[in-house]
Amino acid sequence: MTTIAILGATGYTALELMKLLLRHRGAKIVALTSREEERPVCEVHPSLTGQLDLPLENLSPAEIASKAECVFSCLPHAASAKIIAELLKYGCKVIDFSADYRLDSPDVFKKWYGEEHPDPMRLGKVPYGLPELFRARLVGVNLVANPGCYPTSAILPTAPLLQQGLIQPTGIIFDSKSGISGAGRKPKLNVHYPECNENFSAYGVGTHRHWPEIEQILARFTGRETSVLFTPHLVPMDRGILTTSYCVPTDPGITQEDIESVLREFYAGEPFVQIVKTLPGTKDVSGTNRTHIAVRIVRDRVVLVSVLDNLIKGASGAAVQNFNLMFGFPETEGLVSMTMP
Amino acid sequence: MTTIAILGATGYTALELMKLLLRHRGAKIVALTSREEERPVCEVHPSLTGQLDLPLENLSPAEIASKAECVFSCLPHAASAKIIAELLKYGCKVIDFSADYRLDSPDVFKKWYGEEHPDPMRLGKVPYGLPELFRARLVGVNLVANPGCYPTSAILPTAPLLQQGLIQPTGIIFDSKSGISGAGRKPKLNVHYPECNENFSAYGVGTHRHWPEIEQILARFTGRETSVLFTPHLVPMDRGILTTSYCVPTDPGITQEDIESVLREFYAGEPFVQIVKTLPGTKDVSGTNRTHIAVRIVRDRVVLVSVLDNLIKGASGAAVQNFNLMFGFPETEGLVSMTMP
Amino acid sequence: MTTIAILGATGYTALELMKLLLRHRGAKIVALTSREEERPVCEVHPSLTGQLDLPLENLSPAEIASKAECVFSCLPHAASAKIIAELLKYGCKVIDFSADYRLDSPDVFKKWYGEEHPDPMRLGKVPYGLPELFRARLVGVNLVANPGCYPTSAILPTAPLLQQGLIQPTGIIFDSKSGISGAGRKPKLNVHYPECNENFSAYGVGTHRHWPEIEQILARFTGRETSVLFTPHLVPMDRGILTTSYCVPTDPGITQEDIESVLREFYAGEPFVQIVKTLPGTKDVSGTNRTHIAVRIVRDRVVLVSVLDNLIKGASGAAVQNFNLMFGFPETEGLVSMTMP
Amino acid sequence: MTTIAILGATGYTALELMKLLLRHRGAKIVALTSREEERPVCEVHPSLTGQLDLPLENLSPAEIASKAECVFSCLPHAASAKIIAELLKYGCKVIDFSADYRLDSPDVFKKWYGEEHPDPMRLGKVPYGLPELFRARLVGVNLVANPGCYPTSAILPTAPLLQQGLIQPTGIIFDSKSGISGAGRKPKLNVHYPECNENFSAYGVGTHRHWPEIEQILARFTGRETSVLFTPHLVPMDRGILTTSYCVPTDPGITQEDIESVLREFYAGEPFVQIVKTLPGTKDVSGTNRTHIAVRIVRDRVVLVSVLDNLIKGASGAAVQNFNLMFGFPETEGLVSMTMP
Repeated sequence: MTTIAILGATGYTALELMKLLLRHRGAKIVALTSREEERPVCEVHPSLTGQLDLPLENLSPAEIASKAECVFSCLPHAASAKIIAELLKYGCKVIDFSADYRLDSPDVFKKWYGEEHPDPMRLGKVPYGLPELFRARLVGVNLVANPGCYPTSAILPTAPLLQQGLIQPTGIIFDSKSGISGAGRKPKLNVHYPECNENFSAYGVGTHRHWPEIEQILARFTGRETSVLFTPHLVPMDRGILTTSYCVPTDPGITQEDIESVLREFYAGEPFVQIVKTLPGTKDVSGTNRTHIAVRIVRDRVVLVSVLDNLIKGASGAAVQNFNLMFGFPETEGLVSMTMP
Repeated sequence: MTTIAILGATGYTALELMKLLLRHRGAKIVALTSREEERPVCEVHPSLTGQLDLPLENLSPAEIASKAECVFSCLPHAASAKIIAELLKYGCKVIDFSADYRLDSPDVFKKWYGEEHPDPMRLGKVPYGLPELFRARLVGVNLVANPGCYPTSAILPTAPLLQQGLIQPTGIIFDSKSGISGAGRKPKLNVHYPECNENFSAYGVGTHRHWPEIEQILARFTGRETSVLFTPHLVPMDRGILTTSYCVPTDPGITQEDIESVLREFYAGEPFVQIVKTLPGTKDVSGTNRTHIAVRIVRDRVVLVSVLDNLIKGASGAAVQNFNLMFGFPETEGLVSMTMP
Repeated sequence: MTTIAILGATGYTALELMKLLLRHRGAKIVALTSREEERPVCEVHPSLTGQLDLPLENLSPAEIASKAECVFSCLPHAASAKIIAELLKYGCKVIDFSADYRLDSPDVFKKWYGEEHPDPMRLGKVPYGLPELFRARLVGVNLVANPGCYPTSAILPTAPLLQQGLIQPTGIIFDSKSGISGAGRKPKLNVHYPECNENFSAYGVGTHRHWPEIEQILARFTGRETSVLFTPHLVPMDRGILTTSYCVPTDPGITQEDIESVLREFYAGEPFVQIVKTLPGTKDVSGTNRTHIAVRIVRDRVVLVSVLDNLIKGASGAAVQNFNLMFGFPETEGLVSMTMP
Repeated sequence: MTTIAILGATGYTALELMKLLLRHRGAKIVALTSREEERPVCEVHPSLTGQLDLPLENLSPAEIASKAECVFSCLPHAASAKIIAELLKYGCKVIDFSADYRLDSPDVFKKWYGEEHPDPMRLGKVPYGLPELFRARLVGVNLVANPGCYPTSAILPTAPLLQQGLIQPTGIIFDSKSGISGAGRKPKLNVHYPECNENFSAYGVGTHRHWPEIEQILARFTGRETSVLFTPHLVPMDRGILTTSYCVPTDPGITQEDIESVLREFYAGEPFVQIVKTLPGTKDVSGTNRTHIAVRIVRDRVVLVSVLDNLIKGASGAAVQNFNLMFGFPETEGLVSMTMP
C-alpha cells in the first residue's frame, strides 16, 4: 500500500480526494494536515464518519515525509510550492493541486498571482497532469502540476482540433459556468447562500487566473502563441462545470460528424472522455471522473459543449489518475463505477 | 411624509424593509446606518440601483433623531436596546427588529441571550408587534417589539385555539423549517453555499432563543404557564418558514371543520391571514405579508400547517404593519398586491 | 379603469402579469381564460389567494371582447394569432406574448415554428414591444408583439452599439443563461425537478426560435443583414436571464469607458435600464422590470453582461410598459418599487 | 457472478441501484426492463454512458428468468407483485422495492393502496428487508420486501428504544422531510421545477402510505398495537430524508447519554448506523448507505434526529444489503467508501 498524506485537508477537493482514495486498492491515507483545525477529520467532514479515523494535524515537512510516500497538496498557491520544495528533498512524490507549477514562467506567475514564485527553478519542468494529453510525461515522475478545473474543461475539447489544424488558434471563446464548490470552503460574501442561491453571475471577466493557463497549454498544440477569451460564471449548484467553446473552423465546410470523428479517434480508448450526440448537462457526469463533449456547427462556427465535475475530473479525480501513473497502478484504479449524486 | 431611518441597513430584513417602504405612500427613507460599510447603499444591495440613492453612514443617535421621525432598528440584540433608549429620549418612534423588548423578564433575557439587558426598566411594557393579536396595544405607541419570524409562524395558528380552550396548553410541538435568509447576511460556515445547499438539517434543538418568546406570548392566551416544544430546521432555499404544529384537542371529537371555522372567525377581516383547505407551501406566500394556515385532524391530534415569508410577515412586513398603526396609516399601506418571487 | 382579460392565465408569465396589474392604478382584471382548467384562479395559483377572486373560464372571443378593452394573450404561438385576429375585429387592443407577430416574414415564421402563420397579412406591421428602442411606434396602437425574453437581454446591450457603428454587425456571440420558469408551467422531463436541479445544460444550440428574432431586430440598427450566434442554457433557478455578449469593436482602441458612456447616453432617462460598473448577477434585478448592463474590454473584444428577470422585463413587465403606452398611462405605472424575491 | 435483472429501470432508484451494482464484485447486470422506453439505458440515464451498455427491454417473466438469478423489481405497487409471483415460480430470487410485500394484511393493503392484492397468500410471510433489525430472517431467502424510505428513517432510531421500553409506544410523532427524488422520475406538476424549487411544503398529512408500514413494523418491538403520527414534507433538494422523532420517555429522568449508549450498543458493529453528537444534516450521508442519528432531551421529550439518503439507505443501498444476505456476500459489498455528492 502506498502511504499518502493530504495537505490542507479541510477543503472540498481534499474531501473528494479522500473519498476516492478510500476506494483505491493500493492507497492508504496516513496523514492529514491543517494549519487551523487540529481535530478529528470527521468533525470537519461529517460525511467521513466511520470511514476515516484520522486527526487533522499541523505537521512539518519532515514529519509528513516520515509518514507518507506520496503527498497531495491542496494548499493555496505559493504556500504550496514552499512546502513541496521541502518534501521533494525528503524523497516524497507530490501532486500539487495549486497553480504553482502549472505556468512555465515566473514572470507570468508573478503577474497573475501577485507574488514572487517561491520555487522558480522548477517552472517549465513539471509535467501538466492532464493524462489524456500528456500521459507519457507523467509516468513515474516525482512531481505533477494538477490542472485547473476550468482549463481541463476548455482544453480537452479544443486541443485535438488545434493540433490537427481544424480550428483557428485565435479567436476561440470559452464561456464557462461553474458550480459554487469551486470557490472553496472558506465562507465569503459572494458564496454566502442567500447571495448566490437563485443567482447567476459573471465574474473575473478578463482577469481570471485560469486564462493564462489555458493559453499556455493550448499553445503546445498550435506550435505558436494562442489567443483565447475566457469568461467564468457562477451557477447556483454544488458542483459541475460546463464550458461552451466557440471556434472558427479553418475549413468552412467542415461538418459536425467530421469534428466528432476526429475527437472520437483522438480519445479512443480513453476511459474518461466521451463524445456524445445529445447536448450534455453537468449532472450527466456529476460524481464521476468523466467528461462528455458534444459538437455543433452553428453557421460559421464550431460550438463545443463540454461538461465535467469540477471536484473530480477538474481536481481530485485527475489527481488520482496522476497518482496511478506516478506509482504504476492502472490509471482507472479508484475512479470507475462511482456512485453519483 | 413620515421620515424614516433604518439602523443596520446592510442586512436582508433591512433590504426587504426598504423595498416595502419605497412603495409606501406616507414614508420617506432619509437615513441608513451601518457601522462597517460607509458607502452607497446600492453598492451593498445592487437591487436598489436607481431606486434609493442614499449612503450607509455611521450616525450617532442625535444625528439619526435630527433626520427621522421613525427609526427601524435592524441591529443585533443588546446593541439595539442601547441605541433605542437614546432615540426614545430624542422623541423618535422606534420599531425594534431585535429580541430586546420581546421578553418580559430581564432574567429570562440574560439566560437566553447571555448578557445583562441594557434597558431592563422597559421590559414588560413594550407591546409585542403582532397586530392580528395585539392591535389595540399598538396604535400610536412609541416603541414596538417586532416579533420573531418563528414565533409568528407558531403563534398565529395556535393562539386562537388556546384562547378558546380547544387545545391543551401543554404538549404542543412546533416543528419549524426556515429558509436560509433567516440566518442573516454575515458569511458563516453553516450558511456557506456548499454547506447548506442540497442539505436539510436540524439546529438549536432545545436551545433556540425563539422558544421562550413563543411560550411567553402563548401564555397570554392560556392564562397560565404554557409548555411547548420548538425545533427549528434549515431548508435550502432563500426565504419562507413552514411550521407544523401538533396539538392535543381538549375535545377528542373535534373536526377539521370545527377548527377551521374557529380560525376563520377569529381572523375574519384580517387581510394577511388566510385559512386554506389545501396543504400550503412556503412559495404560496413568498414575497408577501400573508400567512396561510391549513388544518388536519390526524388520529388524536390537531395538526396545523402554517407558512409565511420570514423576511416579510416574519420581519419587515410586520414592521410596516406596526409602523402604520403607530402613525395612523391604513394597516395595509405598502403591503398589498406585491410582486412575488 | 381599463378592463383587462388575460388569455392562458395558468402559466407563470400570466401569474406575474396578474401581480403587476393588481398594483396598477388604472387597470382592472375582469376575465381569465384557460382551455383546460375551469376553476378559481387561486386554486391554480395559491399565491393569489385573497388577491384576485376570478374564475378561469373557457371564453369565446366575443365573450372576451364583451368584458375587456385590453387583452393580454399568453397563449402558445399560432393559437394566439388565431384568436387575436378575432379580438381585433371586436375592437379590443391586444398585447401578444407569443412569437406570432414578432417576425416580419411568414416564411421565416413557418421555417422556425413549423406551421403556416394564421394571420400572415399583419406580419411586418405590428410594432415590436421594446419601448426603450421603439417607443414612438407603440403609443396608442392596437396590437403589440411583446418581445422574447432572450432577445430583450441580447438586443438592449448591443443595439445602441450597432446603431453607432461601434461594433461589427457580424460575429456577435450571445451566450445566454436562463432560469427554469422560462420553460413554462407544463410538466416535462427536462424541467422535472430532479432532472434540472443541480444541473446546468446547453440546449437548442443553433436551433432556438429566439435566434431569428434577435437577428431581425438587430438588423434594424445596422441597416443590413446581421449575423449573430445565440446559445441558450438552463440554470437551476426559478427566474433570471444573464446574457454574455461577445462583440468585435470597429475601433480596436475603444475603451470600457467609451462604451459605457455611449450606453449611458443612449439610455439616459430610461427608468428600466442601468449601466453598472460591477459585474451583475440575475438576482440584482430579480422581481423587477430592470435590466443591468456591464461592459468589459477583454483583449480584442467588447464583452457585455446583461441581466434581467425573464418573467418581468423579459415578459410581463415589458407587457405592462406596452399597455401603458397603448392606453396613455405613465410608462412606469405598476412597475416601480417592487418587492423582490 | 450472480446475474441480475432490474425491472422498471428508468427510475431514480433503479439508476442508483445500477451504480451500486457496477461496483459490486459478485454481481453482473444482464437485463433491464421498461414497458415504455425500449432503447439503450444510456439514452435514458446519460450518467451511465460508457458504464453500462444494455438496452431497456419489455421482457416477459420467462425471458427475465432465463437471464437472471436475481431480480430487483422497481415496478409500481400491484404491478410488482403480479410479476414477482411469476418470477418466483421460475426460481428467481427477488427483491421488491414496491410496498407489495411490506404489509402483513391484504385488508390493510387494500385500504391504503386502493386495490386487491394480487398475491395475498404471501402476505405476512415475506421478511422486511431492514437488516439491522431483521438480519437473521433475510439470510438466503427468495423474496424480500425492501423497506420504504420514510419507514427506515423512522424505525431505526426508535425501534431499539421501544424494544427496551424506554419510550412509550403511543404518541410518537415522526415529522419527516424528504428531497424530491423520492417522488420518482415521472413529470408531475407538484415536482415541476418552478413549483417545488424555493418551496417547502407538507403533503399527505394523515394519508401517506408509509404510515401503516411504520406502525406495523414498530409493533413488533412493542409487542402490542403501536400508534404514531407521521407527517411528510418536501424539501427543495435532490436527495435525503431527515426525520425528527418526538417520543415520551417512560422514565422522565432519562438523559441524552442514556439514550445514546442504548442506541450505540444496539447498533454496535453495524457498518451503516452511526450515533452522532452533533445534529446531523442530510448531506452528511448523501451518496452513502449510512444513517446518522442524534439524540436530544428537550424538556419532557426524547427528540431523535435521523438522516439518510432516500435513494440509497432508503432504497437501493438497503436492497444491495439484502442481496448480499440472500446470496452470501459480505453485507457491505458494493456499499462502502462511496463517492458522495
